Amino acid sequence: MPVYGQFFFHDAPRHAEIEFSDDGEIAHFIEDLFRNPTRSGQSARVEELQILPPVTPRKLFAIGLNYAAHAAEHGNELPENPLMWFKAPTALLAHGGEIEIAFPEHKTDFEAELALVIGKGGKRIPEADAHDHILGVTPAQDISDRVIQRGESQWARAKSLDTYAPLGPYIYTGLDLANLSVQTLLNGEIRQDGHTREMIFSPARLISFLSQAITLEAGDVIMTGTPEGVGPLADGDELETRIGEMKPLRNTIRSK
Amino acid sequence: MPVYGQFFFHDAPRHAEIEFSDDGEIAHFIEDLFRNPTRSGQSARVEELQILPPVTPRKLFAIGLNYAAHAAEHGNELPENPLMWFKAPTALLAHGGEIEIAFPEHKTDFEAELALVIGKGGKRIPEADAHDHILGVTPAQDISDRVIQRGESQWARAKSLDTYAPLGPYIYTGLDLANLSVQTLLNGEIRQDGHTREMIFSPARLISFLSQAITLEAGDVIMTGTPEGVGPLADGDELETRIGEMKPLRNTIRSK
Repeated sequence: MPVYGQFFFHDAPRHAEIEFSDDGEIAHFIEDLFRNPTRSGQSARVEELQILPPVTPRKLFAIGLNYAAHAAEHGNELPENPLMWFKAPTALLAHGGEIEIAFPEHKTDFEAELALVIGKGGKRIPEADAHDHILGVTPAQDISDRVIQRGESQWARAKSLDTYAPLGPYIYTGLDLANLSVQTLLNGEIRQDGHTREMIFSPARLISFLSQAITLEAGDVIMTGTPEGVGPLADGDELETRIGEMKPLRNTIRSK
Repeated sequence: MPVYGQFFFHDAPRHAEIEFSDDGEIAHFIEDLFRNPTRSGQSARVEELQILPPVTPRKLFAIGLNYAAHAAEHGNELPENPLMWFKAPTALLAHGGEIEIAFPEHKTDFEAELALVIGKGGKRIPEADAHDHILGVTPAQDISDRVIQRGESQWARAKSLDTYAPLGPYIYTGLDLANLSVQTLLNGEIRQDGHTREMIFSPARLISFLSQAITLEAGDVIMTGTPEGVGPLADGDELETRIGEMKPLRNTIRSK
C-alpha cells in the first residue's frame, strides 16, 4: 500500500509517493494527494530534499485521555465522550526538526500519538464508514508545557507553542489501526510502550463522534491520544516516536 | 479608512474594498488583502454577490473571561493571563447565514465579540507594536453549546460546531479599539450591551501575549471575549451583532 510524504521541491510544498529502495528513499511526486495521487513523472532522492510535515491540515484535532493508564497517571477521570481540543497548525514540525522549548523553566513533556489523516471529508460519518474517510496514519507528538497546562483550564495554548506538534515523516495507508505499538524512545531508551488496542475510543469511533456536528475536511489530522509513560524533555535530547512498523519520527530538543 | 469584505466572484473567493454609496454598497475587488490591497479595476454591487466571512483564518483564536461581569455571570474566576482556545475554521459563517443549532435539546447561547484580524504575522510582538499587526476588526459571535461546554473540560467542541462562528460582514480599519460598544440584539431587543473599555486584556495585550510562543500569521482571527448578558437562541430568532458603528452582523437561527 502506498506511503506518502511532503517535501519542498522547486520552492513549493509537493506531495510524493515514497519508494523504499536498496539505494535509499525515492520521492515520486504526485498530482494531488487527495484527489489524484498518480505520479507526475518527476522524482528525487529524499536525502536531497527538505522534508515537511506530510500534510498541512486546516484542523489539527487532539484527543485527550484515550488510554486508561495515561489518564490515571495524571489523576484524570475517564471521559464519557472523546475529549477534544485543537492544536495550532503553526505548531507543526517536520521529521528531523528541532523542538524549541519555549519556556525552559517549565516542565515540557513528550506524548507519542498515532495521527489519523483524513482523506475524504464529511459530516455525521457512521462508525462503520469511518475507515473510508482515513487516507492513512503517521507518527505524532503532542508536546505539552505542563506549567501552562496546569495554570489554564484550556489546554490549547500549552500544546500549541511553535514546534510542539511534530508529525511524520510519512503517511502509511492500509495499516490495521487496532494493531500498532505506540512508543517514545528518549535518547534510545523506551519510555512509552503502548498499543492502539488499549485505546478507549477507536479511530472509527473518534471520526464518527467528531463529525457529528463538525465537518471534517481532507487533510485534517486527528492525534488520537497518548499511552502512559509521558515524561520531560531536556536540551539536547533525541526524541524518537515509533508507531508500529512505520518509519520513526525523529526530533531533537533545544532548550535554552 | 478602508473597509474590506470577501465575496464569491467568478466562482472564487475574492477580497474587495467596500464603497458605501447612496446607491448601495459597491465591492471594488483588490489584488491581495494582506500584501497589495490596491483595486484591480473590477467592481460589483454587493447585493448581487454572495458574501463570505471577510477572512479565511488558519487560526481562529477565542478568548474567554475577558470582561469581568461576564466571568461573574458564569461563576468563573478571573484568569491571571488571557485564557485561549481555538474554534474550528469550519465553524465560520457569513453575514446573512443561518446558525444551525446542532443539538436543539441543548441550551445554545449567543456571545457577541469584537474580532481582530491579523494583517502582519509575527512572534514575540511587543505590546507597543501590536497595533501594527492588526489589519482591522469585525463583529463576531462565539456561539456556545452549554451542555457540551459543561460536560467537557475543554471548550473547543462546544464552540466549534458548524456555523457557530459567525464573522463579518466587513473588516474596518483605523478604528479606536478602546472605544467600541459590543451589543447583541435578539429579535430587535438589546440583550448584551458592553464596551471594549471594560476588557480585562486589551487587543494589544492579547496579541503580545499570544505571540509569545505561537506565531501569528496574516489572516488569523482573535475573538476577544464577550461581555455580560449572554443568553439562549431559539428557532427563528434574528441575531444581530453590533460593534461600534460597523455594519452589524445579522444571522438567523434554525433549530429543529
